[in-house]
Amino acid sequence: MSSFGTEFSIPIRIYIEDTDAGGIVFYANYLKFFERARTEFVRSIGFELRQSMTKQCNFVVHEAAIKYLASAKLDDELEVYTRVQRLRKTAIVFDQRALLKGANKLLVKAQITVACVDMETGRPRALPEDLQNVLN
Amino acid sequence: MSSFGTEFSIPIRIYIEDTDAGGIVFYANYLKFFERARTEFVRSIGFELRQSMTKQCNFVVHEAAIKYLASAKLDDELEVYTRVQRLRKTAIVFDQRALLKGANKLLVKAQITVACVDMETGRPRALPEDLQNVLN
Amino acid sequence: MSSFGTEFSIPIRIYIEDTDAGGIVFYANYLKFFERARTEFVRSIGFELRQSMTKQCNFVVHEAAIKYLASAKLDDELEVYTRVQRLRKTAIVFDQRALLKGANKLLVKAQITVACVDMETGRPRALPEDLQNVLN
Amino acid sequence: MSSFGTEFSIPIRIYIEDTDAGGIVFYANYLKFFERARTEFVRSIGFELRQSMTKQCNFVVHEAAIKYLASAKLDDELEVYTRVQRLRKTAIVFDQRALLKGANKLLVKAQITVACVDMETGRPRALPEDLQNVLN
Repeated sequence: MSSFGTEFSIPIRIYIEDTDAGGIVFYANYLKFFERARTEFVRSIGFELRQSMTKQCNFVVHEAAIKYLASAKLDDELEVYTRVQRLRKTAIVFDQRALLKGANKLLVKAQITVACVDMETGRPRALPEDLQNVLN
Repeated sequence: MSSFGTEFSIPIRIYIEDTDAGGIVFYANYLKFFERARTEFVRSIGFELRQSMTKQCNFVVHEAAIKYLASAKLDDELEVYTRVQRLRKTAIVFDQRALLKGANKLLVKAQITVACVDMETGRPRALPEDLQNVLN
Repeated sequence: MSSFGTEFSIPIRIYIEDTDAGGIVFYANYLKFFERARTEFVRSIGFELRQSMTKQCNFVVHEAAIKYLASAKLDDELEVYTRVQRLRKTAIVFDQRALLKGANKLLVKAQITVACVDMETGRPRALPEDLQNVLN
Repeated sequence: MSSFGTEFSIPIRIYIEDTDAGGIVFYANYLKFFERARTEFVRSIGFELRQSMTKQCNFVVHEAAIKYLASAKLDDELEVYTRVQRLRKTAIVFDQRALLKGANKLLVKAQITVACVDMETGRPRALPEDLQNVLN
């Protein structure tokens, strides 16, 4: 069974650590929220990051394109959606969106490209075969 | 009914954002975990931080004493315990502990003093009366 | 005199707080480095962020496109370059690059669009006139 | 020549990344500022953290006691002071203070105990001999 194209989501609560003096979530932190969502997506299909590292595959972000449409605030609860948009030999392209729960309002959307690199050399290498099989 | 002395806990998953080049959770981040736990504790008894701010009460940490006993790693799941140790007119002293779930191993313990300060002047002020009533 | 198109740069040292368990700088942190660089650029032409906020203009990032080419590590020193690429009525488009000092190796490049929004309503508003004059 | 007891300091500028919705520096971030100051202190006497790690010594914080007296805000410049208070076989106790520059106002003070642990086992081990010699 494939997880390709499936929409996966997790809830994320906004804490004071996530905000800035403008009274809203500090924009760089959405990259953390998207990372948590990808991690849980990958865990949901049977993979853990630490385990990947022991196999010398370090997942690194190669590219990120983010659009900020509206701001989240302290105490808000978001729902972060994740979908595999494209699968390449050495990389996965994710489509991600953060919505304000309840209002169902789109706050931030992003396209994030994650590549597998060798932990020693830092060079791109093929995604672990079992991960490819599940995502394909 | 009082929440004084009650033990409250939340689970916290370790993501790559929480770790450092030593391969473990960056120690400053436990203060974030403890903050999340206090926030959820306060929410569980009916209070939200943003709402407090509109009443000109900004909760600020006045003192923190932390002991690091063991390290958490990527993908670990912690359980963070929170208990009101002492209640003062303008401050709450929390007793908090982070344990590795499953192993039930104590990783970090802390005593955190949170005071209510006026958002304009930055001066300590009495805790909101309704919060005092619930905690007493 | 205009600052349009001028290349501005600041050095940034990598500390343990910036790294992750992969042994490299956590990718979201480059957004912080770019923000520091833009802040110092704006300060260098006579503007401070806190002062802008008192005039009800909150600078927020509307769009970010980032390419990660190579990784920085603990103790590295970077040089972060900033240039105004385009000036719009309500936004500034910045062209930014992080290089490894010494080696002069390009690590990360980004195009960041910063808009001025009203602190009350969150709606876009014209950039402060004096800032426009300096950047034009 | 010994560096024991010598007062060392670095300037630290407050950026939007450091602040929270309360309009002040997020308290956990002072641990980052103190870490930067210790790192620069250690570098000033000839040591780099990454180099230490290759020798299997990972410096970890074992204990932190922090008092928050006043708040820093966006755009503020701090001066962070660092002094070795006590030297033990496996740990260094640092005395650190963050002051608001210009006003010379004490904001935060802390006592931070940093231990050297083996990167494989996580167990405390003697500080590198050359570091001991310089600090003694």
